[in-house]
Amino acid sequence: MSTQIENNAISAIRVLSADMIQKANSGHPGLPLGAAAMAYTVWGKEMTFDPKDPKWINRDRFVLSGGHGSALYYSLLHLFGVGGLSVEDLKQFRQMDSKTPGHPEYGHTAGIDATTGPLGAGLSMAVGMAIAEQHLAATFNKPEFPVIDHYTFVECGDGCLMEGISEEALSLAGTLGLDKLIVLYDSNSISIEGSTDIAFTENVRGRMEACGFQTLLVEDGNDIEAIAKAIEAAKAEKTKPSFIEIRSIIGYGCEAKQGTASAHGEPLGEENIAAMRKTLGWPCEESFVVPQEIYDHYAELGKKGTDAHAKWDAMFAEYAKANPDLKDLWDKYFSDDYSALLNDEDLWTVDDKPQASRALGGKVLNKLSDRIPNLIGGSADLAPSNKSYMNGKGDFSKADRAGRNMHFGVRELAMSGISNGILLHGGLRSYCATFFVFSDYTKPMARLSALMNIPQIFMFTHDSIGVGEDGPTHEPVEQLTMLRSMPNFNVWRPCDATETVASWVAAISSPKTPSALVLSRQNLMPLTTSSKEALRVLTSLLKNPRILRT
Amino acid sequence: MSTQIENNAISAIRVLSADMIQKANSGHPGLPLGAAAMAYTVWGKEMTFDPKDPKWINRDRFVLSGGHGSALYYSLLHLFGVGGLSVEDLKQFRQMDSKTPGHPEYGHTAGIDATTGPLGAGLSMAVGMAIAEQHLAATFNKPEFPVIDHYTFVECGDGCLMEGISEEALSLAGTLGLDKLIVLYDSNSISIEGSTDIAFTENVRGRMEACGFQTLLVEDGNDIEAIAKAIEAAKAEKTKPSFIEIRSIIGYGCEAKQGTASAHGEPLGEENIAAMRKTLGWPCEESFVVPQEIYDHYAELGKKGTDAHAKWDAMFAEYAKANPDLKDLWDKYFSDDYSALLNDEDLWTVDDKPQASRALGGKVLNKLSDRIPNLIGGSADLAPSNKSYMNGKGDFSKADRAGRNMHFGVRELAMSGISNGILLHGGLRSYCATFFVFSDYTKPMARLSALMNIPQIFMFTHDSIGVGEDGPTHEPVEQLTMLRSMPNFNVWRPCDATETVASWVAAISSPKTPSALVLSRQNLMPLTTSSKEALRVLTSLLKNPRILRT
Repeated sequence: MSTQIENNAISAIRVLSADMIQKANSGHPGLPLGAAAMAYTVWGKEMTFDPKDPKWINRDRFVLSGGHGSALYYSLLHLFGVGGLSVEDLKQFRQMDSKTPGHPEYGHTAGIDATTGPLGAGLSMAVGMAIAEQHLAATFNKPEFPVIDHYTFVECGDGCLMEGISEEALSLAGTLGLDKLIVLYDSNSISIEGSTDIAFTENVRGRMEACGFQTLLVEDGNDIEAIAKAIEAAKAEKTKPSFIEIRSIIGYGCEAKQGTASAHGEPLGEENIAAMRKTLGWPCEESFVVPQEIYDHYAELGKKGTDAHAKWDAMFAEYAKANPDLKDLWDKYFSDDYSALLNDEDLWTVDDKPQASRALGGKVLNKLSDRIPNLIGGSADLAPSNKSYMNGKGDFSKADRAGRNMHFGVRELAMSGISNGILLHGGLRSYCATFFVFSDYTKPMARLSALMNIPQIFMFTHDSIGVGEDGPTHEPVEQLTMLRSMPNFNVWRPCDATETVASWVAAISSPKTPSALVLSRQNLMPLTTSSKEALRVLTSLLKNPRILRT
Repeated sequence: MSTQIENNAISAIRVLSADMIQKANSGHPGLPLGAAAMAYTVWGKEMTFDPKDPKWINRDRFVLSGGHGSALYYSLLHLFGVGGLSVEDLKQFRQMDSKTPGHPEYGHTAGIDATTGPLGAGLSMAVGMAIAEQHLAATFNKPEFPVIDHYTFVECGDGCLMEGISEEALSLAGTLGLDKLIVLYDSNSISIEGSTDIAFTENVRGRMEACGFQTLLVEDGNDIEAIAKAIEAAKAEKTKPSFIEIRSIIGYGCEAKQGTASAHGEPLGEENIAAMRKTLGWPCEESFVVPQEIYDHYAELGKKGTDAHAKWDAMFAEYAKANPDLKDLWDKYFSDDYSALLNDEDLWTVDDKPQASRALGGKVLNKLSDRIPNLIGGSADLAPSNKSYMNGKGDFSKADRAGRNMHFGVRELAMSGISNGILLHGGLRSYCATFFVFSDYTKPMARLSALMNIPQIFMFTHDSIGVGEDGPTHEPVEQLTMLRSMPNFNVWRPCDATETVASWVAAISSPKTPSALVLSRQNLMPLTTSSKEALRVLTSLLKNPRILRT
């Protein structure tokens, strides 16, 4: 049973969320109220993170895949004191330029590990983070020094699991046995059009078990002991990812609306919130007021993570001393200085003969894979066609976490989201590949790359109707316009060998903008005068901080 | 056990497919060879269709979701004599303007029920066809006159099931209990990058059972009796769709390549094909030659369908006589004459006040829903926001097949594919709805609408950054350019009430071009002079056969 202070700490999340949404006169109270006890348990009891340093590399990651529940997230950040998110910030919920926008935004609000909103996307990014964790652990850990050793938690709802990206991402997570991935399914049986019965009667745990997950059920989403116990069981499972269904009541605490679709996406109303304060036994009548003892309680919970971080710092110092080579490699992994590539003569030396730019793209990738040891990526089952395989770099799998070639399967959308997640984790660079025509499938996640300002790299081959005889389903026509019209997204379509190198260098050097490399299936002509001129322009672009580095 | 003639009939599919691909020096032999026995069983024994009339409305539908296996499809069409597909046509496999293009194309080759190629898409279209069948049956059938009563078969492979659209579509099929949908899973454990073990180890039947399917296993994909038995079991199940896993060997018969990824997507080679002829005991050495007795065998198999069609014609004549009102309604359902809408005064009479075009779109939809009884559609769980609900028209569900409002769930991609399938079936018009920013998710299937020349209708609301306070994940910016750059796709963004009516009328009247209606969340100004001018232009467009009717 939870104690009085625990109950009030959970109520604080509900009350703050309801107040934020009411003041904004806009937002989604259903998720924050329904999932408050789960969030409290995860953040307060089970997740290791340092409120004072939300960027600590070995923190447990948390992704709120149901991004419309942002008020939950901001309540947690505020109560734990992450990034100094203040009551004033909460009062600016959903206002222009505030720290508390409508959906959580990576890079905008401290403590947000991923931008979410499009349902299911968070699941794919969490899978990417869990992959990154395993790869970095395999690369850097020593028996006495587990310098990368953390969990990835991801909240999701019914809507996330209806989206196909959930299946793509979680099926791959099961295949890869990502045992430190813990999915928290906020199961409330309500979506916007009503009961999920109208569109979603599947046995979700059965499906997840089929995908290779350990599945667990918490019958009562307000039972923090049961939630903690399930998470402990998830942590104890060492071969499979875990999927915890937590049955909750949407809008819990607001008796006038709870359990119905009307709790989902609109303010509860002043009167209902006043009634909710009574129902929950909340001690303060005034909006946005939280008793000091609750802040103190959260501070105490947060201190565990700060202590863990301090211990990690000490361990890392020892590690660096004992393993200077690995420390050098670590520094390389966490650097974003690619300036050496500009004057790398071997990289820029290319066969001056007619070649397909996909072939050239593959050659450049392979050269870069030697120079950039933390480059990891792959194709949606088209590596032989995309020329996206890094020779001699191993395949990332259950058996080989050090492998750098991903086999994403025929899953373009999740591939893109997973690649984003790998990049978001920190320490790695990622790329993904498919036919250009299937960039259509990657678009929603490419857009998230652009919104998050992360330099994701897309290798798109078979760039035109010159795809052979596959016909119109495989012939890109409008995709170039589609991608070029997207803000903060670079599209490179190199016309020869030198331009292909330049495109790759531009993409990998780009600090904040994702890039698509659009590459041909058929041979292109060798280096021409016009392309030498193009190279001059590209090189000057790369060196111009105002153009590519803003 | 299969007889000698049956064995040879199956070998004919393999040999013709291999010959076609060899002559084209391009194509995918793996699927046709691996799935030949399954295809023979389905088309020859279990599927009711009339080779002499591939458009017979009550035929069983067949979708080859693995569209790269087109040689299989063309072999079947040729052997059954559908649409006069000749040996000469087979010899033109994958050549410009031939009847046998790289992937199957709806409307181009007789007997092709859907354009496929992008993996998994066929599953969603098949679900749409099965929905259409149920809805039409509920609308038209009388106890003694089951005028619409057919199965929908869909072949899929590992790649189709890796794609998220498979989960979206099949989870909904399970929810809706589409018992006449039969999924044939060609399970060969091979994808382009190698064994499916590297990316796809899920328990597929377990997943499908969780989604509400009856699941069946055929251990040997060459055992036509076992395949027939499983299909009979599928037909006998009256509450759930069925999923039959048929274990096959990719490239079966070509011993040099079978069971490996190299059998997937390139010609087998003259020598290997010669060896295959021996392995299979095929009686002819020459390419493209099939003994007359095999043609006779197929003709005999096909005759069952022709007879069934003749019986149906007789039944339909009786039905029409006994139910003249239903016959009138039937004629209305199968007409595409929307000219009356142009002079429909009530339809064009709109409140001359500031309104959101989404509200107007909903009003027009509701007026149209009375005038067009075969209009069926819905939203990806955003009906209250999209204003896409047809009042008083019921909800399509397991309990109510006559309902016209679809609840697609949060599944934009499958929604679009399912809507395409509803339209492809014939007899119905379909629409689907979501936020404009999520048109990104619909793009791959919108592209198929355009390629198939079917007038699908997309209602996209929240058309700009004026979406409220949801922030950038919900703010469309580049989507208008994305859709407007797509060939054979009309994008309407009406600016007031009259233009909204005109857009809807243009979309529903369009015979071959899908349309997007891009509608605002915020109020727009009432009818202005400029919009009256726009109306004049739109009306003239609608009346101009060269512009919209080509």
